[in-house]
Amino acid sequence: MASKISLSETRTGEIRLPGEMPFSFSVEAVDRGSRARAGTLVTPHGSVRTPAFMAVGTRASVTGLDPEEVRDLGGGVVLANTYHLWLRPGPELFRRVGGIHNFMRWPGPILTDSGGYQIFSLSEHRKLSEDGAEFKSYVDGQKQLLTPERSIEIQTAIGSDIMMVLDECIASQSEAGATRAAMERTHRWALRSLTARTNPEQALFAIVQGGVSAELRRESASFLTAQPFDGFAIGGLSVGDTRSEREDITELSAELLPPQKPRYLMGVGTPPDLLCAILAGVDMFDCVLPTHLAWQGTAFTSTGRVKLTRGYCAEGDVPLDASCGCSTCARFTRAYLHHLFKCGEPLGPRLLSKHNLFHYFALMAEARAAIVAGSFASYARQKLDAIDRHEHSGYRLGRPLAAELQGPTPAFEDGP
Amino acid sequence: MASKISLSETRTGEIRLPGEMPFSFSVEAVDRGSRARAGTLVTPHGSVRTPAFMAVGTRASVTGLDPEEVRDLGGGVVLANTYHLWLRPGPELFRRVGGIHNFMRWPGPILTDSGGYQIFSLSEHRKLSEDGAEFKSYVDGQKQLLTPERSIEIQTAIGSDIMMVLDECIASQSEAGATRAAMERTHRWALRSLTARTNPEQALFAIVQGGVSAELRRESASFLTAQPFDGFAIGGLSVGDTRSEREDITELSAELLPPQKPRYLMGVGTPPDLLCAILAGVDMFDCVLPTHLAWQGTAFTSTGRVKLTRGYCAEGDVPLDASCGCSTCARFTRAYLHHLFKCGEPLGPRLLSKHNLFHYFALMAEARAAIVAGSFASYARQKLDAIDRHEHSGYRLGRPLAAELQGPTPAFEDGP
Repeated sequence: MASKISLSETRTGEIRLPGEMPFSFSVEAVDRGSRARAGTLVTPHGSVRTPAFMAVGTRASVTGLDPEEVRDLGGGVVLANTYHLWLRPGPELFRRVGGIHNFMRWPGPILTDSGGYQIFSLSEHRKLSEDGAEFKSYVDGQKQLLTPERSIEIQTAIGSDIMMVLDECIASQSEAGATRAAMERTHRWALRSLTARTNPEQALFAIVQGGVSAELRRESASFLTAQPFDGFAIGGLSVGDTRSEREDITELSAELLPPQKPRYLMGVGTPPDLLCAILAGVDMFDCVLPTHLAWQGTAFTSTGRVKLTRGYCAEGDVPLDASCGCSTCARFTRAYLHHLFKCGEPLGPRLLSKHNLFHYFALMAEARAAIVAGSFASYARQKLDAIDRHEHSGYRLGRPLAAELQGPTPAFEDGP
Repeated sequence: MASKISLSETRTGEIRLPGEMPFSFSVEAVDRGSRARAGTLVTPHGSVRTPAFMAVGTRASVTGLDPEEVRDLGGGVVLANTYHLWLRPGPELFRRVGGIHNFMRWPGPILTDSGGYQIFSLSEHRKLSEDGAEFKSYVDGQKQLLTPERSIEIQTAIGSDIMMVLDECIASQSEAGATRAAMERTHRWALRSLTARTNPEQALFAIVQGGVSAELRRESASFLTAQPFDGFAIGGLSVGDTRSEREDITELSAELLPPQKPRYLMGVGTPPDLLCAILAGVDMFDCVLPTHLAWQGTAFTSTGRVKLTRGYCAEGDVPLDASCGCSTCARFTRAYLHHLFKCGEPLGPRLLSKHNLFHYFALMAEARAAIVAGSFASYARQKLDAIDRHEHSGYRLGRPLAAELQGPTPAFEDGP
């Protein structure tokens, strides 16, 4: 049985003594002509370069993938879901086995969200109060109350490197009064989360709310950045907002967050979404899209999305994406992947998940290189052009860059 | 894109020129006191030691596993299903891509069954005649006729190293007249299959039928072994017969098959089934059990089956099987596997498939070593004793060995 992974071993092989500052973030380069930054996150379980895309491992497993595969693909931080892990296997097991890194055998950094998203997504099934959110467990049917304190306690037991505050995430179309109320509750819960933290080696990020109101977003960012959080997330987007609203609020919020701390846009998005957010100064992302779409048979490629069950994919001794360096594209043909999906063979989703995640990780690495070279705006333009018009129509490259663009500005349509 | 695997490259690295005898079988050792043999199968895609368990890759994919994983686990021959591959992707694609080895990226030996089993398993959905079996394709609804000639043509296009004749597999409880008729048709179809073979580099095995009648089995073996087939399979078992009938017919049939050619027991079985059949002189097996049970959350272990969703599996920083050398047991705890299955996470079935296949492959390797040492009977006794009584009650060790057994003979009960 392999030994437990100790806190002193990091993915990069650096030996780090307990007590040494376990979490830090530094910006190494800022793009010339945009707000994009290249940085490094340091955690007790290793360093990660930003911009960083975090693979989603909801229940302590990146869907269908072995942690060694995730590492080989270029994975940095893995995200796990406190709400689900709370119900199964529960914080007690994590205390017993020495935390999630040992449990799932992922030796790198792990971020846990707080359960706040479920407050939104399971809104039909929970009761909300100033105390917290009461859910009915799908494991044993018992009522369970998730408070900011309980969330921090569970995340502490899980042993993630980065914890998130419990927030009240609300649909973007909510009326102004409700949006304000949810934001203010988020602020009170954020303070309670900060107070509840017992382990200083686990970083804690706050989550800016405020819907699609610029005024509320300013208020939220102002309140939270006055507190000693280790990083700040932009929450409450991709919950009914239009693409245009999402971009505007992302850009605005990122500008309001302190430059020396990591900025994390939660639950976003497609490759074009990521490129636009990086332009606006975002450092970290998580999204189920690469793995979810893989299980549905859709690949992200250098020229846009490919639905593998389409007839034309049955032909040809060609890889799925000729520009892709992943093991799926190196070893298997698109025709074989098509066959696997038509047959419902589980190897299909697995090979495609690896490809999609590699695609995302490679995008982040390329973005970073372009930022360091000071040419991120033109890199983003080139990348967006290469992607199927269907994918990127409607994306703007960010107002600050209008002057930077070479050539005519394409006519983008706003809207979802 | 990796280059096509040429016929001259084998798994063992031997260079084999086209035209050289591509298929052969040799017996290296016979157990002292039983009919068990240790041998080597040589094919155009590499050598395999026998006794050999063949992983089932029905639709050109060993369920959920990457071919490199199958190889790393100790896989030798992979079995693919002509009926399914006929309907999707079809023989034309295999001709275009240069065969199944290239398509699925399995460089080792491949055996294709003929579609004969589907004649039995889909008996409600096919029309049988002397010509062949008419099925309705589940891909496009078209009627398709599978004849011995068509089956050989499809297997030729698939490019398997070992082909099987089309046979009429019938339920064991069929009355004598129907069993005889099916056997005689199997004989005529076997001759037609032999005549239909165009590529001498693809071996062809015949299938002995005759239900649970010793007389018919003798007749079938006598007829088929008079023909120049490269190997002989025992078919028509595990189709309604009792465990006792299955063992008797296996023992009888194996004895009737020539010792210098491989003997293949189709569709069997559990570890005890394999041990008993090896005792009787069988060399090759295929069964979906290790992978099917893995997807249901059941593991084969050195002390019997373990249902991973059982409550006790939630506890303990222990491997699934302390005696197992597979990567699943080396890296993950039983508690984590339990968690994956309770959550429905697809990594669970995948890790368990690897464990179960490793278990089977290791069993074959251990059996072979015991045969070479001349001590297979006592090895089999020890192995059966270690497995949960529930698993092996009812298994006898074969009449020829009664005198070899040390210690009291356990009271086995006959029956299923």
